[in-house]
Amino acid sequence: MFESAELGHSIDNKTFRKEVEALRVELLNAQFELREAAKFPVMLLISGVDGGGKSETINMLYEWMDPRFLSTLAFSSPSDEERDRPHMWRYWRSLPPKGRIGVFAGSWYSTPIAERIAGTLTADEVDHEMARINRFESMLANEGALVLKFWFHLSKKAQRARFEKLEADPRTAWRVTKESWSRLKTHDELIDVAGHVLRITNTPWAPWIVVDGSDDNYRNLRVGKVLLEALKYRLTNDVPMRIPVAPPIPPRIDGRDVLTALDLSLTVEKETYEKQLAKWQGRLSELVRHPKFRNKALVLAFEGSDAAGKGGAVRRVTAAMDPRQFQIVPVAAPTDEERAQPYLWRFWRHVPRKGRVTIFDRTWYGRVLVERVEGFCAEADWLRAYAEINDFEHALDVAGVIVIKFWLQIDADEQLRRFKEREATDFKRFKITEEDWRNRDKWDAYREAVCDMVDRTSTGQAPWTLVEANDKKHARIKILKTICQRLEREMGS
Amino acid sequence: MFESAELGHSIDNKTFRKEVEALRVELLNAQFELREAAKFPVMLLISGVDGGGKSETINMLYEWMDPRFLSTLAFSSPSDEERDRPHMWRYWRSLPPKGRIGVFAGSWYSTPIAERIAGTLTADEVDHEMARINRFESMLANEGALVLKFWFHLSKKAQRARFEKLEADPRTAWRVTKESWSRLKTHDELIDVAGHVLRITNTPWAPWIVVDGSDDNYRNLRVGKVLLEALKYRLTNDVPMRIPVAPPIPPRIDGRDVLTALDLSLTVEKETYEKQLAKWQGRLSELVRHPKFRNKALVLAFEGSDAAGKGGAVRRVTAAMDPRQFQIVPVAAPTDEERAQPYLWRFWRHVPRKGRVTIFDRTWYGRVLVERVEGFCAEADWLRAYAEINDFEHALDVAGVIVIKFWLQIDADEQLRRFKEREATDFKRFKITEEDWRNRDKWDAYREAVCDMVDRTSTGQAPWTLVEANDKKHARIKILKTICQRLEREMGS
Repeated sequence: MFESAELGHSIDNKTFRKEVEALRVELLNAQFELREAAKFPVMLLISGVDGGGKSETINMLYEWMDPRFLSTLAFSSPSDEERDRPHMWRYWRSLPPKGRIGVFAGSWYSTPIAERIAGTLTADEVDHEMARINRFESMLANEGALVLKFWFHLSKKAQRARFEKLEADPRTAWRVTKESWSRLKTHDELIDVAGHVLRITNTPWAPWIVVDGSDDNYRNLRVGKVLLEALKYRLTNDVPMRIPVAPPIPPRIDGRDVLTALDLSLTVEKETYEKQLAKWQGRLSELVRHPKFRNKALVLAFEGSDAAGKGGAVRRVTAAMDPRQFQIVPVAAPTDEERAQPYLWRFWRHVPRKGRVTIFDRTWYGRVLVERVEGFCAEADWLRAYAEINDFEHALDVAGVIVIKFWLQIDADEQLRRFKEREATDFKRFKITEEDWRNRDKWDAYREAVCDMVDRTSTGQAPWTLVEANDKKHARIKILKTICQRLEREMGS
Repeated sequence: MFESAELGHSIDNKTFRKEVEALRVELLNAQFELREAAKFPVMLLISGVDGGGKSETINMLYEWMDPRFLSTLAFSSPSDEERDRPHMWRYWRSLPPKGRIGVFAGSWYSTPIAERIAGTLTADEVDHEMARINRFESMLANEGALVLKFWFHLSKKAQRARFEKLEADPRTAWRVTKESWSRLKTHDELIDVAGHVLRITNTPWAPWIVVDGSDDNYRNLRVGKVLLEALKYRLTNDVPMRIPVAPPIPPRIDGRDVLTALDLSLTVEKETYEKQLAKWQGRLSELVRHPKFRNKALVLAFEGSDAAGKGGAVRRVTAAMDPRQFQIVPVAAPTDEERAQPYLWRFWRHVPRKGRVTIFDRTWYGRVLVERVEGFCAEADWLRAYAEINDFEHALDVAGVIVIKFWLQIDADEQLRRFKEREATDFKRFKITEEDWRNRDKWDAYREAVCDMVDRTSTGQAPWTLVEANDKKHARIKILKTICQRLEREMGS
């Protein structure tokens, strides 16, 4: 892996100056084109051995390109905001938008590598994390991102020489700290771990480029050239790499599915309803105030047919909670800023911190429901969304975020009745649009999409609860009860 | 995952008979076409809940198709031959050749799932194993294989009902054993584990098809139809799925590489040579006879320029060993049988069992050397070979097989001298061919291929040793010494 980066590559100043002259012009042009087209973001991960020249090269990139459209993302110890959320949250919120270049000084690789060296992660845990990272990066690539990962290498001898040189110069001596020397001691372990990590994450969609870090000219020129090459290629071949991540859905051979199996005639009497509502709201109120909940967070995902009663159900849930504790996120068309990011970005930004609740009225499942049925995205995109969503919910789960998902189902007659009722009721009229009437025509397509969604995303840790919603009272009680019972189980109380 | 498979799908006998009539003809035709074209193998994995109808459906497949070109691969407890080798060895040697259908009753999923339920594997270890399986299956798909994975599902209730029904009939009562009932007890755990495993291994190139197992007609018809559909698609669209697994190689910006860095002037005096040779051969002889070696195995991989002295070096190594203990595998063009299998199959078959040594004179690296340079395979194929080879060597390593790889390098002048010498020497004449002269013309292309190979496949557990081989004596001593020192390290002696 590192053999050729230990050969002591170097470029003399004269050659360097000559080559850079042309390179700078081309880099600036490419960056300009990237910004104008604004079709994809660029992510440069700058990693490597301490003293391998990471900051020097980042500075050089700033010098060569337009610094206004370049941002460096550094990650030191996480803030309390970050600590309270899944560990990938900080990276998600730092992703550069389309048209920009984000330079990651430190990345999702830093912690696993450091923890493996420290021995707090086992080899299997590292491999598991790397498999997750491969999926994350394949999602970035499928969303169009150009991802280049650099590793600046130094042999142990070269690292020592580097530190000594920096120390000797009063202008740079401050950069060599106690930590630097202790890193020299774990150089062998770093190379072992990094060699493995780089090998299993060296994917076609996010390749590692190992660069000999010992000579500034060589390192900078290599990075500049690789970046330019990749930029030019993507700008002229405007097709992101398509990594197949999801199998097609095999055809059904009979008419039975999870929705036909629902008994939509279920009802709850008014009196029972009032009693049950009070009971479960009271219980929910206790649960989210329980000290154990401070170490958890809750995501409630509401999906359902139009007019299925999501809004009303959400209100019955929030009635049991302190408004300072929860946030309702109604999901409509994405903003410009959201459109410039990977699909899941706009949901990641609302992930609750510990002790908090986020309620999504419509969710990330829009991609496999409305976007699929209406043809707003390509088949390859909604197919891969199943896997990406599972990964997203898995990341929430391991961070202690409890995910509860509801699909509210009504039948076509009941929907029609509600539409008409809404039209007749003044204060409900805003709720019914042309689009709602159109969606009704696609009833069967939606039914199929819902069944496939349940098949592919009802997981052990984030199962779907299908709610018979012809009777709103039944639906509300079932939802409240499901939330309470799940919280009780997760909090072991 | 299993929601829709718990709905109690069923197909009545009349519909079944009618549908099967057409299906059988089509399946037979497709199987015939598959066999005639012999372009790809088909692998059907039949897994699922006990009592879910695995053997019933396999029997049905035999009834529907030509049984001569169908083979069922069952895996019970491994033989001693198998136990002594990496755990994937038994699956590799069972792979159906191109044109055939292999039905796997039990597969590489069986053990991880069982061990997870028993608690002997952690969740992380399972995920790690699944990542490995995903890579293995993507290799199969890239090699052209059509892989379909079926999971026959039963709810706990349906499983109990099934056992009771089987027990009640004297013709089938024998099939319900104590183990069956104890499996019923771990049904929930199985569903948990399988749900996770299926989700993360449900890839576009090897999809899982979950089938409700409770009704014979429904299950058989579903499997038959999915199989037919997939077969027809692959037979008419004769393009296997291409899963990108390897990044391109970034261009170099200077002339330094691992080969130019070698000092080919290194020599060893005759007298020193004799002494050293005796010393290291003696040491090697002790090491492979050491009791600790009985739990290890050794793979020696020799690659090098033509006339670099591989054969002579191999002889100096084998001289120290008992011929019953080692096997030399000279790698030339593949046989017909080997050509009908994935690329690495012909190397897997020679993996030594514990206590044994296999010496490869030329190796699996042929794909990234001669096949790359001569254009015998597509770029995508040799690019992905790096990752496949790393996985192969990793599998050897975790099974205790020590892998030591040598590249013997000579310079162009020395090669010419040796070619001429060979032509002049009667008993060496068979060694020099037209091809050798042609290869000389591609010296630079080979040099590049070797450097890329070292970059991408010199791993912590299977590093390359580059051998300066202008002086044969120096080369032989370096090789023997490297082997001995590595064995000492691995055996902790």
